[in-house]
Amino acid sequence: MASPTPLLNDELDIVIPTIRNLDFLEMWRPFFQPYHLIIVQDGDPSKTIKVPEGFDYELYNRNDINRILGPKASCISFKDSACRCFGYMVSKKKYIYTIDDDCFVANDPSGHKINALEQHIKNLLCPSTPYFFNTLYEPFREGADFVRGYPFSLREGVPTAVSHGLWLNIPDYDAPTQLVKPLERNTRYVDAILTIPKGTLFPMCGMNLAFDRDLIGAAMYFGLMGDGQPIGRYDDMWAGWCCKVICDHLGLGIKTGLPYIYHSKASNPFVNLRKEYKGIFWQEDIIPFFQSLVLPKEATTVQKCYIELAKQVKEKLSKVDPYFDKLADAMVTWIEAWDELNPAGASGKAKA
Amino acid sequence: MASPTPLLNDELDIVIPTIRNLDFLEMWRPFFQPYHLIIVQDGDPSKTIKVPEGFDYELYNRNDINRILGPKASCISFKDSACRCFGYMVSKKKYIYTIDDDCFVANDPSGHKINALEQHIKNLLCPSTPYFFNTLYEPFREGADFVRGYPFSLREGVPTAVSHGLWLNIPDYDAPTQLVKPLERNTRYVDAILTIPKGTLFPMCGMNLAFDRDLIGAAMYFGLMGDGQPIGRYDDMWAGWCCKVICDHLGLGIKTGLPYIYHSKASNPFVNLRKEYKGIFWQEDIIPFFQSLVLPKEATTVQKCYIELAKQVKEKLSKVDPYFDKLADAMVTWIEAWDELNPAGASGKAKA
Repeated sequence: MASPTPLLNDELDIVIPTIRNLDFLEMWRPFFQPYHLIIVQDGDPSKTIKVPEGFDYELYNRNDINRILGPKASCISFKDSACRCFGYMVSKKKYIYTIDDDCFVANDPSGHKINALEQHIKNLLCPSTPYFFNTLYEPFREGADFVRGYPFSLREGVPTAVSHGLWLNIPDYDAPTQLVKPLERNTRYVDAILTIPKGTLFPMCGMNLAFDRDLIGAAMYFGLMGDGQPIGRYDDMWAGWCCKVICDHLGLGIKTGLPYIYHSKASNPFVNLRKEYKGIFWQEDIIPFFQSLVLPKEATTVQKCYIELAKQVKEKLSKVDPYFDKLADAMVTWIEAWDELNPAGASGKAKA
Repeated sequence: MASPTPLLNDELDIVIPTIRNLDFLEMWRPFFQPYHLIIVQDGDPSKTIKVPEGFDYELYNRNDINRILGPKASCISFKDSACRCFGYMVSKKKYIYTIDDDCFVANDPSGHKINALEQHIKNLLCPSTPYFFNTLYEPFREGADFVRGYPFSLREGVPTAVSHGLWLNIPDYDAPTQLVKPLERNTRYVDAILTIPKGTLFPMCGMNLAFDRDLIGAAMYFGLMGDGQPIGRYDDMWAGWCCKVICDHLGLGIKTGLPYIYHSKASNPFVNLRKEYKGIFWQEDIIPFFQSLVLPKEATTVQKCYIELAKQVKEKLSKVDPYFDKLADAMVTWIEAWDELNPAGASGKAKA
């Protein structure tokens, strides 16, 4: 990685879900201004969201979503940051970076401001190594490599579909942990990037996340959360579990670690508990479901994998709660809407 | 981990394979002196190895190994640091720490000397989490926890069998990488510990390694290397692959990351290439073998697992090279010798 990182500003959109003025962008200006923003306004569409001057953006509110998707808008969550996935769908770029509006620029241990987007691009542009663990972490970083005993046939790696970044200050804890450890802050800067091994699930957080839309975009659906739904705060988790099994099936990689952002504000743990508590039960069934999931060989594209996944969700998780029946239908609607907005060849390409 | 780390000096032996005077112990004195050392002298047994004053140790040379094991001494390598596993066998302690004699005390980024042994003990005494990846790494460290989306049923973890530490300065590269990057040094201190996920293999290095002898000792066999053998430098790798599949089968955990030691001297890459080159070919068959290995349900102890593994090595790897036939026999001999020196109940306990 000695060569300078390309900007990719004509190949990447930044997607931001929000209900408020985007003052947080001021701090990101040196890093984000070269890029196009897709702002997905949640909640009351009559409210005006102010965007600092000089940013190139398009903004979609609920009226826009309803107008563009028609009846299929039912698959996009309302009053929940899960609505951000609409932005993934309307983008025409190869890469997406999504960030929450309470996330600021973090400092590395030497006090330098971290250009999170640049690190995500680095992560996405170099291969992943899901088939064998490298004890010195990312083998493609400067000063690192594959260690003794790493099979040479696996060193080429596979394309990287997702780059999952982390958070300093407020850690991404569930409501029970927030309640038990209200003062805990993440101050540990771990200077590592690593590929999540094949067959291993992880909790994907949507706060600071980048992905290759062509490789995995159609599976980056954030589910049905918020208004009218029995659950919240599982949008990114759901997307992460779906993406992981599909990446494993298609031979794509997911990295986690650097870059860090500074997460400024803990959300209310009491509100979170209300949103999460069904998920806390359900995930005990969801995880074994994903761990044992097998996708058929014929599922050679992200869309085919995702439709098959929706079928299995309906078959096996509906007995946990009728919500999953509705979610499985929404997953199919999502793919229909995705394909409508992204005609064949424009996205969803995957290794056959 | 807020409580002080117990010393465990009556429960831990330090095993050091060597061919020279152990001057390197001077630097380790403040950390190692409370512990008992088992020194396994390799090469010419008539040579005298000097140990700095004040250390409590026992020393075994080749004559001792032959005397103690009789014909079974054939399973212990000669003229290769793989001979260290004899020390694991004769120990009567619950924990083993093994370190190479060219490894010195490293400094952390704030300049403090790292007590590697203390960190290994911390790693071994708190559970592992092999069934789901935690994006903030070791959830049991101070200032960390399980993140949102981590199933609560998996937070208890499993017993930790192995703690794999890393190396600053000279990285543990194979001969081809050494030849290509002769000047590369590892200067990146990654402040992380993590559980290697279930189903994922890793390259275990014996330079800075601790393990629970009761839980996994009988599988910590370093194979046939060195004198009279067609291969070297795969001793720790072999042990790592065997231990990993057995830990996965028995529900035990393996951690990697902290602590670092300072690895002072690169071994000769030309000599290494001669030792390694068969292994470089063979590992392309060995890895798929271990990745697809299934141990039967009846294998409920480490010994039973290991005997079964030896059987499968003979069946499936002998066609790669006759060496594996010999290795499989040596694996059985190793278990026989282990059981002789460690009568039932004294070791090899595992969750039934």
